[in-house]
Amino acid sequence: MRAELIAVGTELLLGRIINTNTAILGRRLAELGVDVYRHVTVGDNVERLLDAMREAAPRAELVITIGGLGPTLDDVTRDAIVRFGGLRTYVDRTVLAHIRRRYRLRGLAMPAADRCMAEVPEGAAVFHNHVGAAPGFAVSVERSWIIALPGPPSEMEPMAERNLASFIRRIRPEPSLILSRTLKVTGMVESHVHRLIARWMTAQPPVTVGIYAGASEVDIVITAKASSRARALRLIQPVERSIRRRLGPRLFATDQEELESVVGRLFVRRRATVAIAESCTGGLISHRLTNVPGSSRYLLQSVVAYSNTAKETALAVPRPLLRRHGAVSAPVATAMARGIRDANGATLGLAVTGIAGPGGGTSSKPVGLVFIALSHAHGTAVQRYRFLGSRDDIKRRAAQAALELVRTHLTNA
Amino acid sequence: MRAELIAVGTELLLGRIINTNTAILGRRLAELGVDVYRHVTVGDNVERLLDAMREAAPRAELVITIGGLGPTLDDVTRDAIVRFGGLRTYVDRTVLAHIRRRYRLRGLAMPAADRCMAEVPEGAAVFHNHVGAAPGFAVSVERSWIIALPGPPSEMEPMAERNLASFIRRIRPEPSLILSRTLKVTGMVESHVHRLIARWMTAQPPVTVGIYAGASEVDIVITAKASSRARALRLIQPVERSIRRRLGPRLFATDQEELESVVGRLFVRRRATVAIAESCTGGLISHRLTNVPGSSRYLLQSVVAYSNTAKETALAVPRPLLRRHGAVSAPVATAMARGIRDANGATLGLAVTGIAGPGGGTSSKPVGLVFIALSHAHGTAVQRYRFLGSRDDIKRRAAQAALELVRTHLTNA
Repeated sequence: MRAELIAVGTELLLGRIINTNTAILGRRLAELGVDVYRHVTVGDNVERLLDAMREAAPRAELVITIGGLGPTLDDVTRDAIVRFGGLRTYVDRTVLAHIRRRYRLRGLAMPAADRCMAEVPEGAAVFHNHVGAAPGFAVSVERSWIIALPGPPSEMEPMAERNLASFIRRIRPEPSLILSRTLKVTGMVESHVHRLIARWMTAQPPVTVGIYAGASEVDIVITAKASSRARALRLIQPVERSIRRRLGPRLFATDQEELESVVGRLFVRRRATVAIAESCTGGLISHRLTNVPGSSRYLLQSVVAYSNTAKETALAVPRPLLRRHGAVSAPVATAMARGIRDANGATLGLAVTGIAGPGGGTSSKPVGLVFIALSHAHGTAVQRYRFLGSRDDIKRRAAQAALELVRTHLTNA
Repeated sequence: MRAELIAVGTELLLGRIINTNTAILGRRLAELGVDVYRHVTVGDNVERLLDAMREAAPRAELVITIGGLGPTLDDVTRDAIVRFGGLRTYVDRTVLAHIRRRYRLRGLAMPAADRCMAEVPEGAAVFHNHVGAAPGFAVSVERSWIIALPGPPSEMEPMAERNLASFIRRIRPEPSLILSRTLKVTGMVESHVHRLIARWMTAQPPVTVGIYAGASEVDIVITAKASSRARALRLIQPVERSIRRRLGPRLFATDQEELESVVGRLFVRRRATVAIAESCTGGLISHRLTNVPGSSRYLLQSVVAYSNTAKETALAVPRPLLRRHGAVSAPVATAMARGIRDANGATLGLAVTGIAGPGGGTSSKPVGLVFIALSHAHGTAVQRYRFLGSRDDIKRRAAQAALELVRTHLTNA
């Protein structure tokens, strides 16, 4: 089964938004065994969208449009699909009630223009939008299915995950799938990972191994194509076992899992709690930890102590220590971690102090210098790091390193 | 002058990498006055790349491929362009010396396979690669220019910036550019913004107006095409003025500026400081504020008070208040804002308490219920919100609303 994806949006063509949708959807379709032949992006223009559909339909059983389903004049996808298939539409009452309800919950009346979002082609399978307003749908035109998904990634992704996946499972002629297993490493450079697992990098289909370096992690991806999940897993497992043996505890997560979820699970398992003192990471560690549902069970408190005064008062860092060593130093990181742990009676106290830049660096304390301290029942460990990159890169890398320290500690505890 | 971009890479189709190149290049081409009609992505496959070039060339004067210029078997672009144009190639000595030198600097000998990267079509303009090995090039085939750029963004971007830009300036029939102005609104739904500015939405080229809804803001984009920057500005300005009059203080930022930068500038201008008590936003407000260089001048301290104990001890919220109203309530938000302001002697105290979900909601206090309080010298204002969406959406929307409250306050102060 072949698919072509058509993203709709002048903003994408002009580069005002980066298109993350086709990557997300491409990954999902691969898992379903669908071969994605092409991604196309066109502007908010009915004629050009029609051209793209006319070219794609003879080549692909699935033509999936993304975006252009909203209520404004720019939103041309519904109209283009209706014209492409010579279709008639009707107003879906369930969808209309859903859109009205969303306004009612916010204490607003539904604008008349929003009614068009409830219009769907006759005979279409309607994909309910659990996150936003406009539904998606799938409609048969000649030998292809034309499928419309909403543009906001927060709406597109769950709709692809639920409605589209079950729709494809229903219509595909025979089951086949591409299964991937991602093993994640942090704190190592790509070529080091490559050297460690080089012998598996030359694996031939149906199993292949790739390495992909992100900003603060390296992903090892093992991929297999087979007629069933069980068969694909049987191909992946021996390779995965060997790589796991080679990299051991350096692997922090599998597949889509984030470091904060792994750390969260460890906190729950160890019945441990944490209090955090952030300086240069500015709240990013807390933000990541609180992205995990249920994080209130282990994150007691977090303080972003930007000023020295806040470090003294909220964290009880002695003033002479700040004077002698400066805020960005191992002794201050240690005192911050101890202070925040004691103040909250937490199992762990985590503290980060550093220079995120772009200003504030000196030759002895350059931009990117970061100290991370972890205080626990048996003492406080402090680590010195030098991160490269922009302010944003340094914040991200420091937050990642801090969470990795916590993971290592909880794993060995 | 029209362009179509063809990104080459199976990794892009499978969604293992997000395609940032077409966005970067699209933005650059718009600035050069080139109309980008389409982005296409195909896999590492000569035939499919040839198909894409055959479709694009009759529509566009510039067909720009990105990626597939490396030395491995996966790299098919050079071969496809040569076949497409029926071209002959030669080995460019300067390029070959550049590739050899890169290896020599690392103490290595050049692998034989790398020689192919120095092969370029006869008659092509060669784009030297200042960052990596493989050069880009532009070659004339029938009525189009076929242009090849390397895939790694760190190599593609500077090559587009230097070589491609000067090449396009040389070949284009007359100077022209596309200029955009983005006006940002928050706290209003898309169709409401649309209704207010509907009369400008039907503007015709060379000036057009579009509306784009993001997760927590709505962007109004005015675009003009003209032969110079000054002429484009003269087309944009009257429309911009009218829209500014219509939306007034609801516009919070222009172009790429983020709300946290606007708020940061206001803090500096008013010589004001802030201390923050975050509950359901979990550090996101602090993270955003500290993304702005120099934020240590006004962000004194931020506390993520997840537990009731932290609310009592760090923020001095009276226990009876927590018992009577619950942590998610207007009185507790008010007390948190006052508490954090007093503790830090800040100009403003900002507090957020709410239910980010997915668990923890009740019929009287549903998921998405959020109270935001802002304490200042003359009292404390508290607002009730009901946000929809996932945990992540609710965190983002609450953080945006909190920053918008601060912006409004500082603007009117």
